[in-house]
Amino acid sequence: MNETRCQAERARDAFIKLSTAADRTAILREIAQALREKASSIFQANARDLAGAKGKMAEPLCKRLVLNESKLRDVVDGILHIAAMDDPVGRLLSETQLDEGLTLRKVQTPIGVIAVIYESRPDAGPQIAALAIRTGNAVLLKGGREASDTNRVLGEIFRIVLKAHAVEDAVQLVSTREEVADLLKMDDLIDLVIPRGSNEMVRSIQQSTKIPVLGHADGVCHVYIDEFADVDKAVRIAVDSKAQYPAVCNAAETLLVHSKFTGREKVLTALRNAGVELLDSGYGSEYLDLVMNVKTVSSLDEAITHIHRYGSRHTDSIVTENETNARRFLDEVDSAGVVWNASTRFSDGFRYGFGAEVGISTNKTHARGPVGVEGLLIYKYQLIGDGHIVATYSGAHAKPFLHRKLS
Amino acid sequence: MNETRCQAERARDAFIKLSTAADRTAILREIAQALREKASSIFQANARDLAGAKGKMAEPLCKRLVLNESKLRDVVDGILHIAAMDDPVGRLLSETQLDEGLTLRKVQTPIGVIAVIYESRPDAGPQIAALAIRTGNAVLLKGGREASDTNRVLGEIFRIVLKAHAVEDAVQLVSTREEVADLLKMDDLIDLVIPRGSNEMVRSIQQSTKIPVLGHADGVCHVYIDEFADVDKAVRIAVDSKAQYPAVCNAAETLLVHSKFTGREKVLTALRNAGVELLDSGYGSEYLDLVMNVKTVSSLDEAITHIHRYGSRHTDSIVTENETNARRFLDEVDSAGVVWNASTRFSDGFRYGFGAEVGISTNKTHARGPVGVEGLLIYKYQLIGDGHIVATYSGAHAKPFLHRKLS
Repeated sequence: MNETRCQAERARDAFIKLSTAADRTAILREIAQALREKASSIFQANARDLAGAKGKMAEPLCKRLVLNESKLRDVVDGILHIAAMDDPVGRLLSETQLDEGLTLRKVQTPIGVIAVIYESRPDAGPQIAALAIRTGNAVLLKGGREASDTNRVLGEIFRIVLKAHAVEDAVQLVSTREEVADLLKMDDLIDLVIPRGSNEMVRSIQQSTKIPVLGHADGVCHVYIDEFADVDKAVRIAVDSKAQYPAVCNAAETLLVHSKFTGREKVLTALRNAGVELLDSGYGSEYLDLVMNVKTVSSLDEAITHIHRYGSRHTDSIVTENETNARRFLDEVDSAGVVWNASTRFSDGFRYGFGAEVGISTNKTHARGPVGVEGLLIYKYQLIGDGHIVATYSGAHAKPFLHRKLS
Repeated sequence: MNETRCQAERARDAFIKLSTAADRTAILREIAQALREKASSIFQANARDLAGAKGKMAEPLCKRLVLNESKLRDVVDGILHIAAMDDPVGRLLSETQLDEGLTLRKVQTPIGVIAVIYESRPDAGPQIAALAIRTGNAVLLKGGREASDTNRVLGEIFRIVLKAHAVEDAVQLVSTREEVADLLKMDDLIDLVIPRGSNEMVRSIQQSTKIPVLGHADGVCHVYIDEFADVDKAVRIAVDSKAQYPAVCNAAETLLVHSKFTGREKVLTALRNAGVELLDSGYGSEYLDLVMNVKTVSSLDEAITHIHRYGSRHTDSIVTENETNARRFLDEVDSAGVVWNASTRFSDGFRYGFGAEVGISTNKTHARGPVGVEGLLIYKYQLIGDGHIVATYSGAHAKPFLHRKLS
């Protein structure tokens, strides 16, 4: 058995301990404290990674590699925020009395072992590890080679605290010599994969594993300006959706304009003034830059059909004063986020008020849209009886069930 | 593009119509009525299938192929029951005011297009199709070759009713000439696969698709008789878990007995009297027959470790009067169903009171254990504003969000 498999097996044992016996809140507080205390060794390791990357990596990537005082403060604050959350593990979701003395409880549980595969940003590791600890899951962290020194020091800090609570294998770094492909094959040991990185990386992971992947490859978002749109709102929403921060998944890539909308030139001028280059093709491309497709459509139906054909089911917005059209758009567009008279850029766990974000999912099962800690949770059924057997409730003289809902 | 892909694309359009404009309750009632009216043509088709199967298929398989009056009545009653359920589509799950005039709604939706692959039993098609219609999903039904005439007649009855509601592509039969492999490749068009059939069939589907699969291949369930078990309860629960109906997934395959349990011989004698052959190896096998492994363990920990090593995370039961041991078992055993002093055989959607069962899942994401209609549902986020843009809430003078929970 290779080393990565051994790690995954140890993670599986650790998740049981972490989700039952361990004091998860204390662990999180102690990790925040330890990160503060060991800040200088983190910064030293990060300086070594940065020196190694200099000249080999593009400037924006080097910037994402930086873990400085302000970013570490964000990480520590984030972990303290997570530590203060209600403990979700073991929460009673519902309870049914099946018969006298026979009670069914649906109880919230962790998923199990989660593999997190991320690039560049070394602060992504502690953030997601803290969410995993809060929810009782074990994690295998596979960070980028370029951040290996920083990741190693962070991993050691986690390990020391976890070891004091006898769950040292709940957060493990996977050595960079091991291939991601190894992890992706372990569908018997790993329950969920969370990729954090480029579209290409996410797509490649989705295509090469049978383990459920929580995330999204593409964010091809649309703004549709209806015949009945208010011109000012159309200008504001088009510019914000495209240009407020174009490098992210919830930025719009295509503007659909109804042929009878009278403010078209105002909107296009505002976009050009915001530095946006306008194209009339390339539908389905995710530019992540100040580039936008513009297409004229002759009906709401044509807009919806276009979104279903070229979109990525992430987030799409309609600008209109016509409630009937808005309702149809909200109901019929099959995307994780559907927006009426607001920017696509709102589609985000922090703006939605989730407190913590695990990722944004374009999946159609488990978790969709911005995902908070509930994306790391599932449930089990606990049935408590007193010698009850199914024979009593079967056959010609079957006793009927009560099925009385208790909570 | 092949025919199956065209069908899947039409199903995708139909699911939008079915989930928005169509009267799903009326459709279900009319289908129940049509099945009653066309009973004789269903029975004639079934007689042709049975004649074709005779001599080619084993007797138990032929029995499952039968669709007679009593089975059709069950199907019709089941559809009327589903028609009477509350409509789950569009249900408001939560609502948050992000700011003045900016409201976030989490709304229940169908998943989209579901492929159902089933063997022999022709009554499985209408049952799952009715659940799909209730939840606004389109389905592609791929039944067994041996039931093709029956399935064709049933499919026509569905199609006539659906056509009258302009959603004729919401339930489609996939021609038996097409390979299952075609369907399993369409992860861009099909959102969920539900297999109904043998373990081998389910395992083969799980291994050959990237589409989420709702179900379970194996049901390797355990009964653990603790040191502190009541002898009478141990006898009843062991016999019921194994012998009440051994051919199903929630029947127990292995009995774990604590070395200090004094009633061991009583339990083994009762099992032998129920016709059970007792073995002391083969852990991990799913016999689906009157055969059971018996293993002595020296601690609760050893029992839990055995279950994690050889079990299939389906359903496992502890018999004990010791609440501490029971709680540890319920918390630590990582199975969809964990049972204290009752039979593993209770693990079933009807016994749990779900009204309808989509299947039993051993997945760790989306849906776990017996799955009711909620397994066919997901949600989307609807954001409703009045020209709101993210720039207002960003940068040095960012306006704070309200995040006021409305429901």
